[in-house]
Amino acid sequence: MADFPAITSPRNEKIKAAVKLRRRKHRGRQGRTLIDGARELSRAIAANIQITEIYFCPALCQTSESCRLLEQIDEFTMDVYEVSENVFEHLAFGERAEGFIGVAIPPKNDLDDLEIPQNPLVVIVEGIEKPGNLGAIVRSADGAGVSAVILADQKTDVFNPNAIRASLGTVFSMSICSAESKEVCNWLKVKGFQVIAAAVDAKDSYVEVDYTVPTAIILGTESTGLSGIWKTAHPVSIPMYGVADSLNVSASAAVLFYEAQRQKALGSQAHLVS
Amino acid sequence: MADFPAITSPRNEKIKAAVKLRRRKHRGRQGRTLIDGARELSRAIAANIQITEIYFCPALCQTSESCRLLEQIDEFTMDVYEVSENVFEHLAFGERAEGFIGVAIPPKNDLDDLEIPQNPLVVIVEGIEKPGNLGAIVRSADGAGVSAVILADQKTDVFNPNAIRASLGTVFSMSICSAESKEVCNWLKVKGFQVIAAAVDAKDSYVEVDYTVPTAIILGTESTGLSGIWKTAHPVSIPMYGVADSLNVSASAAVLFYEAQRQKALGSQAHLVS
Repeated sequence: MADFPAITSPRNEKIKAAVKLRRRKHRGRQGRTLIDGARELSRAIAANIQITEIYFCPALCQTSESCRLLEQIDEFTMDVYEVSENVFEHLAFGERAEGFIGVAIPPKNDLDDLEIPQNPLVVIVEGIEKPGNLGAIVRSADGAGVSAVILADQKTDVFNPNAIRASLGTVFSMSICSAESKEVCNWLKVKGFQVIAAAVDAKDSYVEVDYTVPTAIILGTESTGLSGIWKTAHPVSIPMYGVADSLNVSASAAVLFYEAQRQKALGSQAHLVS
Repeated sequence: MADFPAITSPRNEKIKAAVKLRRRKHRGRQGRTLIDGARELSRAIAANIQITEIYFCPALCQTSESCRLLEQIDEFTMDVYEVSENVFEHLAFGERAEGFIGVAIPPKNDLDDLEIPQNPLVVIVEGIEKPGNLGAIVRSADGAGVSAVILADQKTDVFNPNAIRASLGTVFSMSICSAESKEVCNWLKVKGFQVIAAAVDAKDSYVEVDYTVPTAIILGTESTGLSGIWKTAHPVSIPMYGVADSLNVSASAAVLFYEAQRQKALGSQAHLVS
């Protein structure tokens, strides 16, 4: 392994600037975010995300994923710094980052940039507050082969370090864009999508929908529901057989995505038969 | 509202003992746990959980659920204390507890106590580490009408305050018991369950299973998988269409539970047709 510049003091200016990225305000100011973890960082690199710095601590690289990243480290073209355990823990802020933390410039995509395949399933996210939920939704969307995730009037940043972490870094490989809800609504209309809204009190069950046509699934916050803009969407609910009246939004997301995927895999005919 | 004993100092002995329950060691020693939140506490009360103390702060009761609980407070037979905001925040430890925190003795059930309906779907949890994941699994199990959750050699306590919170208090209404994996394995055999194990690398897809017969779904940790005891279980995987090789265990749980429930709702014939 080549020699990399070493940082042993948490008071180093670069470290101080990076630590600030744990706070939203500073992410906005610096236009950068933190990527915790070897797997997450690998996915960002594979997706050609613009990474400005990588900090690594060899003593903490103990997972197979971090060892793999360590083997490739000589080939990296971004700035790489070897940091002491003390500095790393200061940077990691309690995250299990497995010896690797990156600083990256989050990609910004518009609706017009989205490349949508035939018979797509896209997910519209509106008003989800917890970064962990947002990241978990993207991870399940990745798993189920969702074509794109569109953030509509979405305040919580999908490139928040906690969202990146909960997504296992799939926020970097997934097609993601941000737009105003109104714009998204028009775009779906123009593109001819069937629009399904997850709603706790909807009469129709999610299993009654045919997902083999181009479909958008809208997920809103649990507390206030979806904004009025989606009133023409077809509301569907997930049947609740217990004492609680709703699933966690990321659990709902996984159930909806995989029902859609189950139907797509079977083909449209099988859905009509069952 | 009746007058309740007031506590205004965080150094009160009862408060000090309750705060200690945030730590596992002290939950073990005291044999008690904390319930954060009005909805969670309501569900514990409805399930006849043994609650030793309730602490409430009227100024922080601002959700419909906490107001409802406040209206019933005169009828409570357990010890109720009105606490200052300062004391409440000390107790709440950053949790959004909506003005209500309870201290409870977690129920302990054996396998033999489980009441299982006809054609049950039970969930076996082994080795899940994060309380949040464990609670989320119980919440989805409640939603999907799962008959019981069995903790097999499970180290993380389902009555950990964070697990209670993530379950929205459904840990109190769900049939839950703890046992050794070996004992659970024998019990399932004796009862004639079909045993399905979620496994990342399994060849069979979860949708190929007929869940309309008595079924146990085994969920293990993502890192080390299931213990050898489950080698006779039928491994099934959830197809992964993206870059990640697994879903979060609580997302997997929701997908499996709701596929089972979808089939049960359709009846066994529809499954065979599709």
